[in-house]
Amino acid sequence: MMKAPRPSAAHLRLAVRINYEDTDVGGAVYYGNYLGYMERARNAWLRQLGFSLTRLRQQYCMVFAVTEASLKYLSAARLDDEIELSMEIVRLKHASLVCAQRARRDGELLVDGEIKLATLNSDTYTPRHMPKELAEALRP
Amino acid sequence: MMKAPRPSAAHLRLAVRINYEDTDVGGAVYYGNYLGYMERARNAWLRQLGFSLTRLRQQYCMVFAVTEASLKYLSAARLDDEIELSMEIVRLKHASLVCAQRARRDGELLVDGEIKLATLNSDTYTPRHMPKELAEALRP
Amino acid sequence: MMKAPRPSAAHLRLAVRINYEDTDVGGAVYYGNYLGYMERARNAWLRQLGFSLTRLRQQYCMVFAVTEASLKYLSAARLDDEIELSMEIVRLKHASLVCAQRARRDGELLVDGEIKLATLNSDTYTPRHMPKELAEALRP
Amino acid sequence: MMKAPRPSAAHLRLAVRINYEDTDVGGAVYYGNYLGYMERARNAWLRQLGFSLTRLRQQYCMVFAVTEASLKYLSAARLDDEIELSMEIVRLKHASLVCAQRARRDGELLVDGEIKLATLNSDTYTPRHMPKELAEALRP
Repeated sequence: MMKAPRPSAAHLRLAVRINYEDTDVGGAVYYGNYLGYMERARNAWLRQLGFSLTRLRQQYCMVFAVTEASLKYLSAARLDDEIELSMEIVRLKHASLVCAQRARRDGELLVDGEIKLATLNSDTYTPRHMPKELAEALRP
Repeated sequence: MMKAPRPSAAHLRLAVRINYEDTDVGGAVYYGNYLGYMERARNAWLRQLGFSLTRLRQQYCMVFAVTEASLKYLSAARLDDEIELSMEIVRLKHASLVCAQRARRDGELLVDGEIKLATLNSDTYTPRHMPKELAEALRP
Repeated sequence: MMKAPRPSAAHLRLAVRINYEDTDVGGAVYYGNYLGYMERARNAWLRQLGFSLTRLRQQYCMVFAVTEASLKYLSAARLDDEIELSMEIVRLKHASLVCAQRARRDGELLVDGEIKLATLNSDTYTPRHMPKELAEALRP
Repeated sequence: MMKAPRPSAAHLRLAVRINYEDTDVGGAVYYGNYLGYMERARNAWLRQLGFSLTRLRQQYCMVFAVTEASLKYLSAARLDDEIELSMEIVRLKHASLVCAQRARRDGELLVDGEIKLATLNSDTYTPRHMPKELAEALRP
C-alpha cells in the first residue's frame, strides 16, 4: 500500500474565485480583502498539517494573533478571476512566526504580503510557546 | 431647567457614508452589506435607549439573535452617497420583536427590510423573555 | 467515448469553509455573510452551465441584480465548519428568476433562503429578457 | 463675524463604533477590517478638504490606488467600543503620498498603520501627477 506523501510543512496553495462580494467600484478586488484570503490560506495550511484552529484551542489552549501585516499591491484581481494564495514560513520562533503570503493569477504576482503571528494562551491572551507537536510540524 | 426629551422608543435614524469598501464592481453598494448597516442602526437605537449590547449581556445575560431577514432592493446607493437608516418596531412579543428597517437617500427608499430578532440567554443560547426594563423601554 | 453528463441546470452544491473572517463575537457566522456565500453559489452554478458573469456581460450585455432576499436562520455555523450551499431554481420568467438557496452542515439545514434576481441590460441597468441560450440552459 | 477655521490639510479624526459585523469569534475586531476603517478616514479627510472621490474622478479624471499597506496590531478593539481613526500625511510627492493612519481607544494606540497611495488616471489606470489644486490642499 502506498503511503500518502507527508504534507509539506512550509507550503500551501489555495485557490480563491473572485465574486462581486470581493470587488469594489474601481472594478478590482478591494485592498482590505486580501487579509481575509491570507487568513483562509493560513488556516487551510494548518488544517493540512493536522492542526485546525479548533484543535489548537481545545487540545492546547492556544490561539494565533496577527501582530503585524504588510502588503504590496502590484496588480489587480478582477471578477471571475481565480487567484492562488501561497504561504510559506520565513521565520519560526518559540512564540511567533512570520509567513510570506502571496496572491498570484496565472503565475503573475498580484499581492506580496508578510504576516507576523504570535502564539497566545487562549484563556489569558498572553504570549506562550507553541506546543512542541506544532513546532515540529512547522519546522521545514 | 429643560428636561431632555425622552428618546423615542420606536425610532432611530443613522447616517452611513458609502466608501469603496461598501461597493462592488457593479458600481453600487453590495447587496449583502445592508444587513451590516441594519445591525449598526439596531445597536445605535438600543444604545440610545440605554441598553448597549454589552450591558444587556453583562447585566441581564441576554443576547439578540436574528431569526429572519427579508429585504427588497428598490434603488442603488453609490460611492460618496450618504444614506440614512431608519428603524421602528412593528411587533413586540415577550421573547422576540420584528423591526422595519429602511435605507433611504434624500428621502428616496433604497432598501426596505424586515428583521425578526429573538432574545436568548447568553449562556445557553436558548430563548428567554426580555428583561422587564428593556420591554418597557421598547413599548411605544 | 463516453459523453460527460450535462451539468444539471437546476442544481449546484458548493462547499464553504468557515474562518475567523466569517464569524462574529457571538461565536457563529455573522448573519449578513450568508448573502455572500449565496452569491458565490449562484456564480459557480452559472459558470458550471457555461455562463460566467464576465461572458454574460461581454457577449450578451446582461447583468443580474438581486431584487429581493429573504433568509430564515435555523442553526449557527461555527469556526472550522464546512458548510454546503445548494441552489435550485423555483421560478423562471423572461426577465427574472427565483432561487431557493440553502446552507447545510452535515445535512442539517442552517439557513433557508430565497433570492429573486432580475436580468438587466448592462449599459442602461433597465430590465431585459435573458438571452435565449441562458434561458434554455436554466430550464429544468 | 467669525471665519470658520480652515480645515487642517494634514489631519483628521473619525469615530467608528464597533458592532458585531466588525468582530470575530476571538472577541475582538477582525484584523482585516482596519483597512476598511482607514479608507473611511482617508475619504472623510479628502471630503473635508473639498475633494470627494467623486469630484476627483469627474473633474480631474483621477483615482487613488493603495500600493502598500503596513499595520502593527498593538491592542484589540471590542464590541461597543468607539475607536478613533486619525490620519496625517508623512510624505507627499507628485504622484504618490504616504499616510500615517492610527486607531486609538481613549487615547490608547490600537493599530499603527502606514498606507502608500498612488494617483492614477481614472481612464487608463496609469500613474499621473495629482491636480495642482489637490497638491496645494494637501501641503501642510
